[in-house]
Amino acid sequence: MRKPLKVALLGAGVVGSQVARILVQEADTLESRIGRRLELVGVGVRNVDLPRPGIDPALLTDDLEGLVTRGDLDVVIELIGGIEPARGLVMKAIEHGASIVSANKAMLAEDLGALSRAAEAKGVDLYYEAAVAGAIPIIRPLRESLVGDEIDEVMGIVNGTTNFILDKMVTDGVSFQEALEEAQALGYAEADPTADIEGHDAAAKAAILAGLAFHTEVLRSEVFCEGITQVTSADIAAAEQMGCKIKLLAIAKLTHDDRIIVKVHPAMVANKHPLASVSGAYNAIFVNSREAGELMFLGQGAGGNPTASAVMGDVVTVARNRARGTAAHFSPAYTRRVVAPIAESSAQFFVSFDVVDRPGILAKCAAVFGRHGVSLRIVQQSLREDGEPVDGFPARLGIMTHLTLEANLARVVDELRQSEFVGSNVRVMRVEGF
Amino acid sequence: MRKPLKVALLGAGVVGSQVARILVQEADTLESRIGRRLELVGVGVRNVDLPRPGIDPALLTDDLEGLVTRGDLDVVIELIGGIEPARGLVMKAIEHGASIVSANKAMLAEDLGALSRAAEAKGVDLYYEAAVAGAIPIIRPLRESLVGDEIDEVMGIVNGTTNFILDKMVTDGVSFQEALEEAQALGYAEADPTADIEGHDAAAKAAILAGLAFHTEVLRSEVFCEGITQVTSADIAAAEQMGCKIKLLAIAKLTHDDRIIVKVHPAMVANKHPLASVSGAYNAIFVNSREAGELMFLGQGAGGNPTASAVMGDVVTVARNRARGTAAHFSPAYTRRVVAPIAESSAQFFVSFDVVDRPGILAKCAAVFGRHGVSLRIVQQSLREDGEPVDGFPARLGIMTHLTLEANLARVVDELRQSEFVGSNVRVMRVEGF
Repeated sequence: MRKPLKVALLGAGVVGSQVARILVQEADTLESRIGRRLELVGVGVRNVDLPRPGIDPALLTDDLEGLVTRGDLDVVIELIGGIEPARGLVMKAIEHGASIVSANKAMLAEDLGALSRAAEAKGVDLYYEAAVAGAIPIIRPLRESLVGDEIDEVMGIVNGTTNFILDKMVTDGVSFQEALEEAQALGYAEADPTADIEGHDAAAKAAILAGLAFHTEVLRSEVFCEGITQVTSADIAAAEQMGCKIKLLAIAKLTHDDRIIVKVHPAMVANKHPLASVSGAYNAIFVNSREAGELMFLGQGAGGNPTASAVMGDVVTVARNRARGTAAHFSPAYTRRVVAPIAESSAQFFVSFDVVDRPGILAKCAAVFGRHGVSLRIVQQSLREDGEPVDGFPARLGIMTHLTLEANLARVVDELRQSEFVGSNVRVMRVEGF
Repeated sequence: MRKPLKVALLGAGVVGSQVARILVQEADTLESRIGRRLELVGVGVRNVDLPRPGIDPALLTDDLEGLVTRGDLDVVIELIGGIEPARGLVMKAIEHGASIVSANKAMLAEDLGALSRAAEAKGVDLYYEAAVAGAIPIIRPLRESLVGDEIDEVMGIVNGTTNFILDKMVTDGVSFQEALEEAQALGYAEADPTADIEGHDAAAKAAILAGLAFHTEVLRSEVFCEGITQVTSADIAAAEQMGCKIKLLAIAKLTHDDRIIVKVHPAMVANKHPLASVSGAYNAIFVNSREAGELMFLGQGAGGNPTASAVMGDVVTVARNRARGTAAHFSPAYTRRVVAPIAESSAQFFVSFDVVDRPGILAKCAAVFGRHGVSLRIVQQSLREDGEPVDGFPARLGIMTHLTLEANLARVVDELRQSEFVGSNVRVMRVEGF
């Protein structure tokens, strides 16, 4: 019998403890699928004294660097998250000849290029299916299945926490703050929810997806990012009136001049678009490519079990390669495409604002849009429900534009805000799939 | 500069000509993604004299065996379809050291095990993403992404022709025959539509999906297969009344005793289930697994461009491996699970039949189900729309059962058919997602 493959695990939190459990409990099954046995030889944690049910205490160590540099490891599973010390440990593990499985979106969004090149140079694998959209297979489809095609756009709901909050605002009619508090009480949002609600988590995933889809290196810092903290109940209601739902979207698309746009922002998504009905903790990713057309991938985007599923898929793949002495990793950044500034990208917008009730006011407003080259698709005027004018502005206009440059729309909003016939509450929301 | 990788193409039909076009037109792009240039060195066709726009006539040959045995090929793309001569040619190509990309579901459903073992023994790749559900990445997700998980069920709409026909029957209220004729007129169905409408095409795909999902060898002949030729407008109407759509499903699932059920049949799918809204030529595959939970994959299931996208993804993957002298193929049938006979599988059913209008008739019918251990979920009685009794049977009962053994349901139907109070038109439809 051939010797087992040696596996080390970094991190034993929610996902790590699931992975450790599967490695031990399913050892026979995994062996049949790999052709070699996997042996968990060490689990690196910050505190070795905490109780870790299901993990042999003899495997625990707080010397993570010592673990990844022991030199006989076949696979290192990195589940500690964050940029450092994760990146340094993964780099050292690669230098010492181990293949890597990681779920660490923050690290990968910061440094996928360098890590990939290091892995390729050393002839080891670097797999990270769990880093984006939990259990949904999206990394392999982009890296392999669609690699002979030309992707035009990747658009997804990749953060379950914000999707849950936006859902709650719709179904229960509560404010953002109330929905956030409920998400925290249920454990869907963390005590410090910043990474989720400000869009940082989605932006890291967007950087990874964009890099794979467009065969280039995209850094987290290049991603335009706007969270959901400013989304109001009035926005939700306006979206409903337009037959849309508000979703936090991660979008990466190719421009006509071969640059890419990578952005995260809330958007009104038409109810008829498949992403509109993705609810709760589900994630979904929509891909549009030249030959394949539209594809959609749907599944659970987070949680210990779904993420562990994705990690274990990578572990088996990497171990199979290892067992035959090869690696299938391919550094994805072999072309150089530039990320265009958001002002140069186009979108459809819904702009709403209070106006005075005066003859010809609609024409005046429309003229503002026209002056900046923004053409209108739908204009709707509504009186406030309570009939009371706000600060002397009795009516509210809702205007859906055609596709337009972000820069042009910004000029429209500036001018509206300075107009004496427009109130101060000018709201802007991007629109998709309408 | 390193020498180009040599590629041969077998078949230059709808998909093959697209693939040839991409290989030539996108040669630079492909080279950047692979790290080596691809050189199309031969195209094997039945008739070299037909005009093949976009293909250099000098590449055409009708000596397919000579082409695959020339000994210097890196990749053979098999797109001729059918079992022979495709299988023999692929086997010879493997023996002569070429990696294989195939879209040939019929061949793979017949012989995936032997072909896989041959590829593994020779250290070459065998990829076939295009064989199931066109451009939808499903083979890699099953073979790699979910390989560390335990799949309970794979259920999909994998035949666009039948989906189009069933859609037409719903939206236009036409008969199966009329819908089929329209599909033929539009080119969605072939002149001889047998493979699609009898479910053979879906059954081949089901065999491939089942083998990958459950890590075993499943032959086409082991798949229970029932097509849509018997679906009537009355079935469509009854489904609508129950809040369902009729879809041709390919289903592979694990039984509680670790056997598998593999079947293709029309079924009433509850409108709330994501598969119900998959329309037209789209395919969708739904996977339920222990850790990952529910996943769904949606996209175009056929057509030259989507299928070419899947083929080219495989070509790049295989070429990347080839360029570094490795292969990532892994023979999937490393366990032996038995396919259980359909009679031993369970399903939910909708049974409808004409009855006499007599006091206590409902109790009598219910008793028939009870005698065979089939419990009822919904019973609905309706008079015919035109008020005319059929053959003396004025009322029609529609009965939705709970999950029950196929064998038990068959006994119920036998007894109903023999009852003097039941008309001859007993209809049975399986139900999913209700």
